[in-house]
Amino acid sequence: MTENSSGPVARTVLQQCLQARLQVRPAEEHAEAQFVQIDRGMVVYVCFFRGATDDILPKMVSTLLNMRLCESSSGKMVSVCQLPGSLLIVPQATLGGRAKGRAMQYHSNIGKEDGLRLYQAFVSLCEQELKSAAAAAGGAEVTVKHGTYGNRQVLKLDTNGPYTHLMEF
Amino acid sequence: MTENSSGPVARTVLQQCLQARLQVRPAEEHAEAQFVQIDRGMVVYVCFFRGATDDILPKMVSTLLNMRLCESSSGKMVSVCQLPGSLLIVPQATLGGRAKGRAMQYHSNIGKEDGLRLYQAFVSLCEQELKSAAAAAGGAEVTVKHGTYGNRQVLKLDTNGPYTHLMEF
Repeated sequence: MTENSSGPVARTVLQQCLQARLQVRPAEEHAEAQFVQIDRGMVVYVCFFRGATDDILPKMVSTLLNMRLCESSSGKMVSVCQLPGSLLIVPQATLGGRAKGRAMQYHSNIGKEDGLRLYQAFVSLCEQELKSAAAAAGGAEVTVKHGTYGNRQVLKLDTNGPYTHLMEF
Repeated sequence: MTENSSGPVARTVLQQCLQARLQVRPAEEHAEAQFVQIDRGMVVYVCFFRGATDDILPKMVSTLLNMRLCESSSGKMVSVCQLPGSLLIVPQATLGGRAKGRAMQYHSNIGKEDGLRLYQAFVSLCEQELKSAAAAAGGAEVTVKHGTYGNRQVLKLDTNGPYTHLMEF
């Protein structure tokens, strides 16, 4: 984890899942809601703070995908790449909240345009890194799915223990 | 949020749910697994650090139950007491993890006995506070359920957006 004097520029919460399903497009008049789904793997909730730049992404992705945060079928802690498992990335601006009185404020969060750009670059890097790890592991069937930035993240999660971790960068 | 020079003594992650189900006793030879369940409300993942004492519990419980972290049916942010909603408390030692190389270490976590005692006191205080809030709101049917300290937290979560928040004390 990168520590700098002005605090972290990204906050992530990680949970393990057996299956996770996320709405990526709400229902409209002539169209049903759309969902993405992963089976065994890791849910990554991510929030960028003001001051975050593309520079942090390679280390952030490499750390998240290679930390031993997942339980293998033999009970050993392994990385999501080693599992091998899939990733569901959930943009989660609420993670940047700070209490003021009884309300949460989000003044430290990055602006919408920069946030969207970083989020898209983060997703792409995760796809690249997980794909090459899967290829190296003999073509395991893993995938990266992700939520729509700025939307409500309607999420359903099934776990065998979420093993919730916090990682800041 | 209480800040002190030696860092936080408790870390919580909060998620909103439409329904959440948690295993409180694994299956045994002659007994099926046991579960608790809440409907609409908030899941509280909690981890105490070394140095945490009972002193922090009243402020912690009052803050968590009265912060506006939940979305009401009209889309307004309200507290779990105002919703009114139920609470599912999940002991989550992994939240205390710190990265060292590719492994997470949990050296800052409180010892098992003290952790269990604080956890039980935390649950009791939540029960008291939510019960009096529900009575004040005309006897709304809300409940506090909680996981078994030290067990694997087999969790199933259904949300209309988890609105994941981090709060440290």
